[in-house]
Amino acid sequence: MRGMFITFEGPDKAGKSTQIRLLCQYYEQNGIPYLLTREPGGCAVSEKIRQLLLDPSNDMGPVCEAMLYAAARSELVGQVLKPALEQGTTVICDRFVDSSIAYQGYGRELGAEKIAQLNQWATQGLTPDITFYLSIRPEVAQQRMNHIQKDRLEKADDAFRARVTQGYEALLQAQPERFTVIDANGSIEQIHQAILQHLAERIHR
Amino acid sequence: MRGMFITFEGPDKAGKSTQIRLLCQYYEQNGIPYLLTREPGGCAVSEKIRQLLLDPSNDMGPVCEAMLYAAARSELVGQVLKPALEQGTTVICDRFVDSSIAYQGYGRELGAEKIAQLNQWATQGLTPDITFYLSIRPEVAQQRMNHIQKDRLEKADDAFRARVTQGYEALLQAQPERFTVIDANGSIEQIHQAILQHLAERIHR
Repeated sequence: MRGMFITFEGPDKAGKSTQIRLLCQYYEQNGIPYLLTREPGGCAVSEKIRQLLLDPSNDMGPVCEAMLYAAARSELVGQVLKPALEQGTTVICDRFVDSSIAYQGYGRELGAEKIAQLNQWATQGLTPDITFYLSIRPEVAQQRMNHIQKDRLEKADDAFRARVTQGYEALLQAQPERFTVIDANGSIEQIHQAILQHLAERIHR
Repeated sequence: MRGMFITFEGPDKAGKSTQIRLLCQYYEQNGIPYLLTREPGGCAVSEKIRQLLLDPSNDMGPVCEAMLYAAARSELVGQVLKPALEQGTTVICDRFVDSSIAYQGYGRELGAEKIAQLNQWATQGLTPDITFYLSIRPEVAQQRMNHIQKDRLEKADDAFRARVTQGYEALLQAQPERFTVIDANGSIEQIHQAILQHLAERIHR
């Protein structure tokens, strides 16, 4: 049986990394094999593309950025995700195509349709089975951001962040069966339990 | 007045670099300002992408390769080519979109239409005014190749090279007004004179 493909999405500082770590711990404690990858990255060449993207000294426009994300993703899918899913392994991915549509399509205003098309090609049509969307109020995100070294992407401004959220909302509306919205304003443990509960219900079905 | 945008295309070892060098010398001797760039590369981030593409240790599929070329090109166009052409500078480019269509679209069999679309986006529609296609017989190319350290792209096999040539031929047929076919089996000086003659005729028109 093909493995389950789970992605986490949401604005910066919604707590994705923390929740992914807790879910992985849960899988480990229960002896469930899983593979965790991150985007951009996850295999040798994609990690090199990641370095290009996240280095603040690299001056690049939004089209170049979108193409580099898609290039990195194409190798992640071909080298890592597809083989693992075919072997029946659960795959957890920190961001996937939805992030490109929200950040580049809406945030950088390149157009959702173009980004979707580019990524359809990059992923060979691979789509997550479940996408947890961690929903957070802008003021909570802002609070969580203050103490942390800001990288190139996180330096983007408020109008950009508003467009990203708008992009995610459009995706949630278009594909409600794939997305599970999680209220990420609460405590870490509350959010973790909501995720586990949804996964249990999903496996039951 | 907008500068003239000249590109050189053709299979490996057709003598593009040599001819470009001679053309640049001619421009220098005649006090004609010009800008020479290479693909992939030509600006900081694109040169970093070039390193990724040409390093034989980087394991990547054709889709990733095509997207990296397009990403590098988008920055070359935005940061270098468009500003120079707008200032009236003649721009000479060693390979451009046609190479992607021939090498990735045909050679790697990704489809000419998809590669053209991707690059239409990357170049904002910028098209060369003149493209010199250096036409060479396969056996001549093979002879010229033997003594040289082969990089990742040059290690490709004969069937690949035949598809690349087929791709170029399709482009020549589709856009005869843009392409000038130069017989590149002759001597370096003969080829150089043929190029200068065409440019003189072109400026006359």
